[in-house]
Amino acid sequence: MILWKEIDVTTTVRIELKDVTAQVSATLTKSDVKNGTCYVYVPHTTAGVTINENADPDVVGDLLATLEELVPVQGDYRHVEGNSDAHMKASMMGFSQIIPIMEGKLALGTWQGIYFCEFDGPRKRKMLIGITG
Amino acid sequence: MILWKEIDVTTTVRIELKDVTAQVSATLTKSDVKNGTCYVYVPHTTAGVTINENADPDVVGDLLATLEELVPVQGDYRHVEGNSDAHMKASMMGFSQIIPIMEGKLALGTWQGIYFCEFDGPRKRKMLIGITG
Amino acid sequence: MILWKEIDVTTTVRIELKDVTAQVSATLTKSDVKNGTCYVYVPHTTAGVTINENADPDVVGDLLATLEELVPVQGDYRHVEGNSDAHMKASMMGFSQIIPIMEGKLALGTWQGIYFCEFDGPRKRKMLIGITG
Repeated sequence: MILWKEIDVTTTVRIELKDVTAQVSATLTKSDVKNGTCYVYVPHTTAGVTINENADPDVVGDLLATLEELVPVQGDYRHVEGNSDAHMKASMMGFSQIIPIMEGKLALGTWQGIYFCEFDGPRKRKMLIGITG
Repeated sequence: MILWKEIDVTTTVRIELKDVTAQVSATLTKSDVKNGTCYVYVPHTTAGVTINENADPDVVGDLLATLEELVPVQGDYRHVEGNSDAHMKASMMGFSQIIPIMEGKLALGTWQGIYFCEFDGPRKRKMLIGITG
Repeated sequence: MILWKEIDVTTTVRIELKDVTAQVSATLTKSDVKNGTCYVYVPHTTAGVTINENADPDVVGDLLATLEELVPVQGDYRHVEGNSDAHMKASMMGFSQIIPIMEGKLALGTWQGIYFCEFDGPRKRKMLIGITG
């Protein structure tokens, strides 16, 4: 059995890594699962999800700057909506993450946080959190 | 319990994002799972799998062009087979995707499709689809 | 039910793709699972995990060289620890992999190996292996 729960995520700028660890943890806490697996799924094509450092905000800033450098918003793209960079960045980060559940908690590493990756905001977005175990 | 099913995928050019959503959906339909998780796994090293927009084909074209720009087929590579770019592109897109199953259907977002990523075709390829729930 | 097991990984240089397939396989062998799913999770933010060719070591060399070219260690980064490139590389490769289990074995493709991706070593690292089925 797996329980999928839909969570709202509101982003406020064009590109943003938003820490959603607390929202994912809260979903786990409401379940009775002590040992299992947590899935985070993003049902969009210009937003994704990754894991990275939650201590120094400069890390997230550097990730966004590096993504902009690798895949600039302006480029020789054919898609007329002007957000081809966002589609590429989302595929590079991925649309899902798996996190182990141990002793009733997300078994994230010491410095790990879960980041919703907005690449074409600001928008009202969703993510699906699945808990099984 | 999980059921893994092997599906054939035939690609027709060197690099190609092939929409396999219908094949994955058909595998789910044949199972009785109403609520669960679907896994797509690619057992190759020069092909991967991603999720992205299934509406405007220019999006997929821009993804391929951007991947070619970031990791050109010609480069200062040591691997003698001449497909080092394909290995890199596959690791960038990933070898598996997770999709939630809700109400007996893949809970893909409105614009999401599942794409088999061929980076060293044309070839006869395989993917494994796992359904659990 | 899922069993998560913690495995030590020692890396010896700054960037390295270390083949951990044997360690993951050994964890599966100790379980009784014949049909299921194996998860590999890396609880770090400057190391990840990918799958790629385990035959010609030049493939792995080319992957590392390409990652260095795309995201150089020296760059216009703000994070003072000097390892922003490692955070980015880890997010590009990802922090988890899923591998199908069939007939009691990892259903890896013929040329696939599982690689722990060290981007800020040498260090003593960990990975979590989850077996379910």
